[in-house]
Amino acid sequence: MYIESLEKLINNFRSLPGVGYKTAQRYAYSILNKTKEEVSEFAKSIVDAKNNIKFCKECGNFSETDICEICRKKNTDIICVVKEPKDIAVMEKVKSFDGVFHVLGGTISPLENRGPDDIRIKELLSRVQKYGTKEVIMALNPDVEGDATAMYISKLLTPLGVKVTRLAQGISMGSDIEFADEVTLSRAMEKRTTL
Amino acid sequence: MYIESLEKLINNFRSLPGVGYKTAQRYAYSILNKTKEEVSEFAKSIVDAKNNIKFCKECGNFSETDICEICRKKNTDIICVVKEPKDIAVMEKVKSFDGVFHVLGGTISPLENRGPDDIRIKELLSRVQKYGTKEVIMALNPDVEGDATAMYISKLLTPLGVKVTRLAQGISMGSDIEFADEVTLSRAMEKRTTL
Repeated sequence: MYIESLEKLINNFRSLPGVGYKTAQRYAYSILNKTKEEVSEFAKSIVDAKNNIKFCKECGNFSETDICEICRKKNTDIICVVKEPKDIAVMEKVKSFDGVFHVLGGTISPLENRGPDDIRIKELLSRVQKYGTKEVIMALNPDVEGDATAMYISKLLTPLGVKVTRLAQGISMGSDIEFADEVTLSRAMEKRTTL
Repeated sequence: MYIESLEKLINNFRSLPGVGYKTAQRYAYSILNKTKEEVSEFAKSIVDAKNNIKFCKECGNFSETDICEICRKKNTDIICVVKEPKDIAVMEKVKSFDGVFHVLGGTISPLENRGPDDIRIKELLSRVQKYGTKEVIMALNPDVEGDATAMYISKLLTPLGVKVTRLAQGISMGSDIEFADEVTLSRAMEKRTTL
């Protein structure tokens, strides 16, 4: 039996990362078991998140305001460069770091036809000069593209007298920063090495 | 950094079965990467499903109409009894079955204080008499509660001249009908045994 609104809901759940038909179906049935209030709250939170969250004009992180909370409050002497906004959520848990972030929005990848001008490197340079930043920490994933991007940025910043460091290779090769645990990240932050 | 609408969205995703914080976070980020149109379509499908889907007045299955499509079109000589609406979705794939379904909405469970009057057994009896149904197939999970419920219903229906069968024990003990594969279910339907 084909129930149109159920199939539509299942299809929408399938669009989430890593969700197959059976899982989407479980999610859909669980929606039907909620109260009307819970369901409309759920739907509203989806639309609200999309409508309210934009990118911080300074660092490129998700933010509900033009300039995010971190850029307004934290120390601009030190900038931690990450690939995506979601990496900030984990890096923020590193208590020993009190600087600001910079989201590149990707890494240099000749294979995917992404050069230095396609990611936010220019924005990083102008922030470093505007702030008089002393150190830039590269917190990119420890893979070929991450290393190449870090090296490229280091060659631009070192001549300007900026210390460029990267997270210690305590993070295992090929893994993803998003899923690293806090202890590993703290240690990697502590033992960061000069590029 | 606390982004209110993001946290609200993550919390809503966490209310789905088997979803923890990290998974909910991944889902939330993927919502932010969708277009506004996709997002409002997603939100609408959640509200629509909840608003449009009710229970069929005959069988208790999910339906967008008062009487579901199966009850309107299929053969009422034979009724397949299931525990929950979601079990119908899998049982329907058994090509050799062309009868209607009946959702009990649970199984008899003294431990959870659920007796015969708390599930839709009376409704089953009145449907069997109204239709003059010849056979009732018990497609309940092969566990203690499922077996007890099947036995209870069999004792009510057999004196009325109704043949009560159950799925062959091809389905492994302790498993859940929702996750059984089609081949196993087809075989179990074929070799169903008289109670």
